Amino acid sequence: MRKRVVVPSGRLEIIGIVGLPEITEGDDLTRLFLDALEAQNLELEDGDAIIFTSKIISKSDGRVIDLRTVLVSAEAARIAEQIEKDPRVVQLILNESNAVVRLTCNHVIVETKHGFVCANAGVDESNVGHEKAVLLPLDPQKSAHQLRREIGAETGKVIAVLVADSFGRAFRDGVTGVCIGVSGIPALLDRRGEEDRFGKIARITKEAVADEICAAVNLVMGEFQEGVPIAIVRGLQLECCESDIRDLLFDREEDLFR
Amino acid sequence: MRKRVVVPSGRLEIIGIVGLPEITEGDDLTRLFLDALEAQNLELEDGDAIIFTSKIISKSDGRVIDLRTVLVSAEAARIAEQIEKDPRVVQLILNESNAVVRLTCNHVIVETKHGFVCANAGVDESNVGHEKAVLLPLDPQKSAHQLRREIGAETGKVIAVLVADSFGRAFRDGVTGVCIGVSGIPALLDRRGEEDRFGKIARITKEAVADEICAAVNLVMGEFQEGVPIAIVRGLQLECCESDIRDLLFDREEDLFR
Repeated sequence: MRKRVVVPSGRLEIIGIVGLPEITEGDDLTRLFLDALEAQNLELEDGDAIIFTSKIISKSDGRVIDLRTVLVSAEAARIAEQIEKDPRVVQLILNESNAVVRLTCNHVIVETKHGFVCANAGVDESNVGHEKAVLLPLDPQKSAHQLRREIGAETGKVIAVLVADSFGRAFRDGVTGVCIGVSGIPALLDRRGEEDRFGKIARITKEAVADEICAAVNLVMGEFQEGVPIAIVRGLQLECCESDIRDLLFDREEDLFR
Repeated sequence: MRKRVVVPSGRLEIIGIVGLPEITEGDDLTRLFLDALEAQNLELEDGDAIIFTSKIISKSDGRVIDLRTVLVSAEAARIAEQIEKDPRVVQLILNESNAVVRLTCNHVIVETKHGFVCANAGVDESNVGHEKAVLLPLDPQKSAHQLRREIGAETGKVIAVLVADSFGRAFRDGVTGVCIGVSGIPALLDRRGEEDRFGKIARITKEAVADEICAAVNLVMGEFQEGVPIAIVRGLQLECCESDIRDLLFDREEDLFR
């Protein structure tokens, strides 16, 4: 579902949440977030968006893999040799993917089973122990809905929850924060049909606000999420609605670059 | 030049600047910005990043074109018919471009003369009068340097200036704010060689902070820049440095998706 901004927000605040312990399988992220919030003397407000880095959701989902347990297929071994990458990591990437989009030096660009086009299916060897890798959360959209429900019930506040990861882009160097799960605000603001200041009708403008929010919090989290695995964005003037990360994904047929 | 974040910022503030008049060719943006700042009872602080939407720079550059003056070539007419677009606008797009990357319904994806890959070379018919279109700024990188120099000299503060536009992306629907000119902070943070919390070395992580900053301010500016053509981002912990928007652009040869 797509909704419109009512009033542009004049001021926005991004607050990093710190002090969470190292997350392991089964941890209650709602509880740990609320405890960290209290320890920082913060209270949620209606309209806050809470952004969780995907890595802590993966860890609580039990998506940390011991590379020594991975059985490597012939296909993974062949790709690994071609792109000079650990064959066990390539195997994990293939396991997580619907399709390979491109191969390049040290990267497999894929469509993940969730439908995201990204490098290495988001499989990440950083910020986990030796011989370990972390997969993307099992169902980040479902996690966003669940965290929103739980935090809303505990605090009585009308809040939104987003799950953030960092992806590279076509045509521009470097990664930026992107959204992989969103609950309580629109993923995409559809401004088609709105008049501009000169009375012209916008024909094609859709704004990926969920990605913009996740890019913004990456400035606080840092690419290594250095102890800032959660952030609050305060001051967004977005209507509460039921939306879904799939609003941001193209059908394969309408995707120009595949 | 690429620099590293010293300390992750725990808190970030985004402040929209309002009350600027409609911009026309030759307007002094530094003066108008400082006047608007004063009218809002705001003062700059060391470390502030000031983001100008590209549209007001284009307008002060005199890049508003009367479509009735555009001479349409045979090539533009042919493309216009194919993609169902105003042939005069197609002509402007071709004038602004090094190369056409893709054609699609109502869009020409091009590499602009600045080197940006984007739809319609950024040529925009919104927020200008009837039968008018706005081109991207002539040299947004130069504008960023100039505005930074002028605002720094007027205020004595160490600030950064970025120029923001909105581009679509491959693989994901909707536009997001992107940077097209940056002065005073790194465009790209190179974290290769930094250790993560487990002592592993990051091999490939580069973060496009300039794009993340421009995405963040789009949440305040809105896609129509509804009277919020400038924003301040306060609290970034980025080292001051000489950088350039070209740090974010791939060479055509190393670009996977062309």
